[in-house]
Amino acid sequence: MKYPKIPLAQTVVQLCKAKQIQHIILSPGSRNAPLTIGFTHDDYFKCYSIVDERCAAFFALGIAQQIKAPVAVVCTSGSALLNYYPAISEAFYSHIPLVVLSADRPKYLVGIGDGQTINQKDVFKNHIQYSANLKLDLDEKKSNTQDDLPIMKSIENRIENFLGLQQSIQDYNELEINKAINIAVENEGPVHINIPFDEPLYERVDALTVTPKVIQPNVENVVETDYQSFANIWNSSKRKLVLVGVLSPNSIEQKYINQLAEDDSVLIMTETTSNLHHPKIISSIDKLIAALNTDEFELLKPEIVLTFGGLIVSKKIKRFLRDYSPKHHWHVAKNGANNTFFVLNKVFKQSENSFLSSFLPLTTPSKSDYQPFWLNQFKIRQDKHKTYLDTISFSDLKAFDSILSGIPNQYQLQVSNSSTIRYLQLFDVNPTLDVFCNRGTSGIDGSTSTAIGAAVGHTKPTLFITGDLSFFYDSNALWNNYTPKNFRIIVINNQGGGIFRILPGHKNTPNFDYYFETKHHLTAEHLCKMYSFKYAKATTEEDLKTQLQDFFKDDDAPKLLEVFTPSKLNDEVLLQYFPFVK
Amino acid sequence: MKYPKIPLAQTVVQLCKAKQIQHIILSPGSRNAPLTIGFTHDDYFKCYSIVDERCAAFFALGIAQQIKAPVAVVCTSGSALLNYYPAISEAFYSHIPLVVLSADRPKYLVGIGDGQTINQKDVFKNHIQYSANLKLDLDEKKSNTQDDLPIMKSIENRIENFLGLQQSIQDYNELEINKAINIAVENEGPVHINIPFDEPLYERVDALTVTPKVIQPNVENVVETDYQSFANIWNSSKRKLVLVGVLSPNSIEQKYINQLAEDDSVLIMTETTSNLHHPKIISSIDKLIAALNTDEFELLKPEIVLTFGGLIVSKKIKRFLRDYSPKHHWHVAKNGANNTFFVLNKVFKQSENSFLSSFLPLTTPSKSDYQPFWLNQFKIRQDKHKTYLDTISFSDLKAFDSILSGIPNQYQLQVSNSSTIRYLQLFDVNPTLDVFCNRGTSGIDGSTSTAIGAAVGHTKPTLFITGDLSFFYDSNALWNNYTPKNFRIIVINNQGGGIFRILPGHKNTPNFDYYFETKHHLTAEHLCKMYSFKYAKATTEEDLKTQLQDFFKDDDAPKLLEVFTPSKLNDEVLLQYFPFVK
Repeated sequence: MKYPKIPLAQTVVQLCKAKQIQHIILSPGSRNAPLTIGFTHDDYFKCYSIVDERCAAFFALGIAQQIKAPVAVVCTSGSALLNYYPAISEAFYSHIPLVVLSADRPKYLVGIGDGQTINQKDVFKNHIQYSANLKLDLDEKKSNTQDDLPIMKSIENRIENFLGLQQSIQDYNELEINKAINIAVENEGPVHINIPFDEPLYERVDALTVTPKVIQPNVENVVETDYQSFANIWNSSKRKLVLVGVLSPNSIEQKYINQLAEDDSVLIMTETTSNLHHPKIISSIDKLIAALNTDEFELLKPEIVLTFGGLIVSKKIKRFLRDYSPKHHWHVAKNGANNTFFVLNKVFKQSENSFLSSFLPLTTPSKSDYQPFWLNQFKIRQDKHKTYLDTISFSDLKAFDSILSGIPNQYQLQVSNSSTIRYLQLFDVNPTLDVFCNRGTSGIDGSTSTAIGAAVGHTKPTLFITGDLSFFYDSNALWNNYTPKNFRIIVINNQGGGIFRILPGHKNTPNFDYYFETKHHLTAEHLCKMYSFKYAKATTEEDLKTQLQDFFKDDDAPKLLEVFTPSKLNDEVLLQYFPFVK
Repeated sequence: MKYPKIPLAQTVVQLCKAKQIQHIILSPGSRNAPLTIGFTHDDYFKCYSIVDERCAAFFALGIAQQIKAPVAVVCTSGSALLNYYPAISEAFYSHIPLVVLSADRPKYLVGIGDGQTINQKDVFKNHIQYSANLKLDLDEKKSNTQDDLPIMKSIENRIENFLGLQQSIQDYNELEINKAINIAVENEGPVHINIPFDEPLYERVDALTVTPKVIQPNVENVVETDYQSFANIWNSSKRKLVLVGVLSPNSIEQKYINQLAEDDSVLIMTETTSNLHHPKIISSIDKLIAALNTDEFELLKPEIVLTFGGLIVSKKIKRFLRDYSPKHHWHVAKNGANNTFFVLNKVFKQSENSFLSSFLPLTTPSKSDYQPFWLNQFKIRQDKHKTYLDTISFSDLKAFDSILSGIPNQYQLQVSNSSTIRYLQLFDVNPTLDVFCNRGTSGIDGSTSTAIGAAVGHTKPTLFITGDLSFFYDSNALWNNYTPKNFRIIVINNQGGGIFRILPGHKNTPNFDYYFETKHHLTAEHLCKMYSFKYAKATTEEDLKTQLQDFFKDDDAPKLLEVFTPSKLNDEVLLQYFPFVK
């Protein structure tokens, strides 16, 4: 076996191995050659090569989203590193453990006009769980000799001093690497380890010269001791709303959901990204609340909101809970909470199951009209939803209806941001699907890369549904050798940013079309040819249904189906939907 | 005329206008709608719409590189902003005035789990000349009322207090905007103005409600008073090296170059990016010094190095001047200097012409062999260069020879990083060409976008030469409506990162090919179809010469010529070049 000659590179690689970071996404470069050599010569690691660092980091995020363990990205020095930032911020807000390993010049070559060199230290400060800035013997040696040791010190002393320094630097680096990776695990978020290397970079040795210490992370649940007082508040409240945002599949045991759903004073509202299912759940929040009036909101207003999961897509529920403040907002999550409705007064810092196993036995169900009334309202809307879908012309909404009916069971569904996730939330999604969307920053910048990474990190076949702007934005996502053959993309191409037509802009003016909607006539066809995806398209409902029949069948290449919808009709159909279903 | 209703948006737009920021690159979004409305409804501004913020910022950089004045980029809140970072770091190290205008949520909505929201304050801290974090009345009002004013204060007092606060916030914002834009001009670099907006975002009014104060920037040269003592050192030195990195065309008057070149004790070495020309200039540094031995380096070693311009491409000259330290390194630049050779002992903070007009009259030419000897050495290498080119097979080096002979006079030549700029530097480039390359961070991430922006910012026809990895990395650069019809791209497609084959890696192993060279079989053809570029290709020298005959002719669309070269031969040809030409 070959190892990089540089001890610091060995240290980083060995600690990643000790901490079971198996997936390593490498972007080409020379400064990071010691790491590339280290990772790619050890069969323990699954290495991937992706040139565009923006895509590489989102690809890594997709794997980490699935395996729920740290994934590493490795890049060279300079602006390469900055291209990781969009994915790092998504990982930060979505609590995904992404370990960024950046090669750097030695300190003495930073800030003096050397090529491909920026100020990498703490560069992600605003959105990182920890930044480790490793040290190089050489830098310390240089600064040490500049300190001018007293002349009386013997040469032996100097050597001893230097060797001691070398050991203490090795200790420092080992500690910092351990700390960074442990924080990625404990806090479930991105960390940055900046690693200076001096030339020569490509030399290899046959045996390791370091044996770094491994410090284990500390991942205990913080257990609340006083559930009873919270249960008392809960039991004496007449209207309890359980609201669930982004949550990985199987995060909450079904028995707990069942128990909550059987309490008539508890209304459960979930987003599609929550991956929770029960007949007594309001699984499409906006469909229920979009057209409510003041009196109805007063009826809906809960005393307690108990939230699980990550960020909430529905703007309408956020607005409602800010305008009609509940007395209590409690959130359950190992990694902290957002005061989204400005009334957060309790955070249970533990896993959802751990909390519910302690809390639910202390609760007693109440007789109430709260849940039955709103479930009935929801049922009415679900029926009208069907009626509406039967009456409308082919459009985004109609296309989603056909697509969602056509997805086989047990698929993983990855969804891009902006209108795609919002449309999806209007439908009852097949409960055998796992649904994911980058809601940490809700960006359109890396959804395709994330979806492909997720498909690599999971054994299920994956469908990715995206809008045209998101798709073209992240077109480099297709530039890799890892897209599984059973990966499928559906691009809803409405020739621009359809969401802007739904917002209160001044649509159908040249200014609006150009600068907000950013209309275009691009198609995904050429990219499919370039990156060897099979391509199909649909422009009518019949087209779409026909295409969907074959689309999910096994094939020898990944496939993309582009659905063209009428941009000027889409917004009308959607805006009329909400009053109709009420 | 229509204006955004929000006074802060009016203020930003009016101050940009007052400060003659005319080019505005907008990316679509809702939070930035007040700015988009403001800029696009005023004919003073030249507005551009570019969806991918990474490309948008490099496009802006290209315009600013040409017009040498601030250009603004405008984006919505969230990770959109982070996609600007690669271009911001390039602007930072290349001293290009880029004004980043980011819309943000109001402070009370940041960090509480609202959608599309990150921590934008000071997010570019490591690579920005100034960050202005503007304030919103509302945020201040909220925090003020939370302060609980004493009850005895009358309602009138409260209103007065609020109006005063409002005025002081407006003053604060005006001052911050002025300061940021002035710093972009004075320090020639990127600045970030973060602008919180609350809903409603799309409302418009017919008249301005603000008249912001305009504070002018201060752009005086710092004039050195003691040129004589430096001239004395200069005049008593026998070997003076003038070394010039990145410099805009016409930065130094030809008469000064002529005067320097007529002094036999002065050797002028320039990089292709210096845009300086004179028969007595060493215009291809590596060609001269790549194969020198220790004795020859001792002969070349100068007593003084006088540098002009930005970063140096040639690693070999940097290594030489670090290993053979001159006594003095003086740098001339308004915006400061890098201690690239660790012996910088004087910075003349003024323009090149201003310095030379004061300094040169105090100097006296010396008789010396220094310049004649090395010019003769250079002449020998130039002759051998021709011989070598006649003997080699078709390869990267040969392709550059044909291409550079084929470029019409008076073109602007934009060059991507990595091997492209390094090959270019081995040739004597037609002196009527203006040459540009992003050497601030030397990234491969935005060269195409920069080149297209530069073509928009200039009247000359533009040729962009790039490698395949750089080209595919920035493929979204082609996604815009502004590429001039006379824009030309030549992609040297050697099916991977050819530069890695020249570095001391372990080439021709599967590991190397995959993770370093990142071999691929992509072509630019599909992207050309997608974005309406005319496409041509060449795989032999004859092919290439034939294609070049028509390539620069007027046409109704931009054109791309893809030159396929043999990857396994390219590095051999180059590595044998240096010993041959000695």
